[in-house]
Amino acid sequence: MRTVTKDTITQAFLGYMAPDTDPRLREVLTSLARHLHAFVKETNLTHAEWEKGIEMLEWAGEISDTERHEMILLSDLLGISSLVDMVNMVPGGTSSSVLGPFHISGAPEIPIGFDMKRHFPGEVLLATGVIKNAAGTPIEGARIDIWQTAPNGLYSSQDPEQDTYSFHGIQTTGADGRYAFTTVKPVSYEVPTDGPGGALLDATGRHAWRPSHLHFIVKANGYRTLVSEIFADDDPYLDEDAVFGVREDLVMQYAEHPAGTFPAEGFELSGKVDGPWLKAEFDLVLTPG
Amino acid sequence: MRTVTKDTITQAFLGYMAPDTDPRLREVLTSLARHLHAFVKETNLTHAEWEKGIEMLEWAGEISDTERHEMILLSDLLGISSLVDMVNMVPGGTSSSVLGPFHISGAPEIPIGFDMKRHFPGEVLLATGVIKNAAGTPIEGARIDIWQTAPNGLYSSQDPEQDTYSFHGIQTTGADGRYAFTTVKPVSYEVPTDGPGGALLDATGRHAWRPSHLHFIVKANGYRTLVSEIFADDDPYLDEDAVFGVREDLVMQYAEHPAGTFPAEGFELSGKVDGPWLKAEFDLVLTPG
Repeated sequence: MRTVTKDTITQAFLGYMAPDTDPRLREVLTSLARHLHAFVKETNLTHAEWEKGIEMLEWAGEISDTERHEMILLSDLLGISSLVDMVNMVPGGTSSSVLGPFHISGAPEIPIGFDMKRHFPGEVLLATGVIKNAAGTPIEGARIDIWQTAPNGLYSSQDPEQDTYSFHGIQTTGADGRYAFTTVKPVSYEVPTDGPGGALLDATGRHAWRPSHLHFIVKANGYRTLVSEIFADDDPYLDEDAVFGVREDLVMQYAEHPAGTFPAEGFELSGKVDGPWLKAEFDLVLTPG
Repeated sequence: MRTVTKDTITQAFLGYMAPDTDPRLREVLTSLARHLHAFVKETNLTHAEWEKGIEMLEWAGEISDTERHEMILLSDLLGISSLVDMVNMVPGGTSSSVLGPFHISGAPEIPIGFDMKRHFPGEVLLATGVIKNAAGTPIEGARIDIWQTAPNGLYSSQDPEQDTYSFHGIQTTGADGRYAFTTVKPVSYEVPTDGPGGALLDATGRHAWRPSHLHFIVKANGYRTLVSEIFADDDPYLDEDAVFGVREDLVMQYAEHPAGTFPAEGFELSGKVDGPWLKAEFDLVLTPG
């Protein structure tokens, strides 16, 4: 390839791949190389700009660890993560949405009805719903991994004041398919702005806010794993989520309940609530897979 | 953007950029987002594939430090670095070529005629030439930053046996524009394969070899900085450089000299050579800028 030029380099790259390369890997790399090469040619990317890009990626690497995932944040802010969700959506189920960079493995098992808010102040929310299939049949043994920020807008991994698994927990449904927990009403928060993600937002005059939400991953035998979020219907950032995660069907409707009415439910809830509280009933529909 | 879909997300991303965003940044990000979004849509990238990509980038971040630059290696192996060179080439000058991940700052100033090989074994090469403009006029005060591997194929930063600046040095030309140093004949070597770059090569059945070369960066007032490499004309990997760096005009011709004839030059060389030696005369042409 002594004579490789800007017109032949993509072909040269493709030609380097061995004949027995996995066909799907070849397909993905072919598309990736074509698009990255076209990007460089279309913009006549300068060395200084290339260096800036490398510097951003190296910075993202430096700032990342087992709890902070800046590469995911960059993917989120560029709309890539949401687009991956969209191209993989299966009709008939609850929409998926971004995993985000703050999921941590190994959250504790918590019983149905658990009080996730514990001693934290904030508006009390009872979040509950049925995990079911598209025909409406409840799914027994579904595992829902839930996480959210504390009332200060920080995930446990960002906040030295919180335990590792504060506002993280996994419930396993019974025959009625129901999950249920009390928590504090999620708050909108800014994604971390002290890394290259923040630099990107700053350079393009974008804000860092995400509308308030609860994250969850639902796994059940015989069904596609659902990674998604549910959003609060009264959030000012619903229409301008920094990471493009909102879908119409993921917006919870809050029902307000006056003081002295908690729990008003047929099942057990471990939290005690004296004041007013909110309830969101939100079913999650899984598709086969 | 509650209704963002795979057909509107690129426009949503573009719409988030503030009106006063730097026009060139907007241009680059617009092209980048369009191509990355098209890549995801064209391949229907799965979550598992997206996760694999994130994992590769995180791994590249982990393995990188001030001396190892895996992000650059990934850019090199994908042909991106060479393509950036190509789109920025100015006719009339020596071709540029990849910087590579092993340049280190702060190399020592070395006199013209310096013996860079020192105590290292290997075939002796006298590399010399004139740094000049396109009209052939020598450039005084040009600074050439040179680096190469030791005979074992390792750069100093990869090799605990070498000093930090082993096979690194900076010469400043006099009125004749000449650089000159003795070294060991460069050897072909494999790029590091213990990171995601190696995983990419392995998964696509590619070898990791680069044809033997000397790296250099030339800076001179009033001229464009030249980042390039010169290659040995007898190398078996000239036509299949793992990082697409070879250009026809960057290939050195070696002249063989018998024992007892060193230095046979009009200028001072600090190395002593008793056996046979090679000479490469290679001029470097800078363009204004």
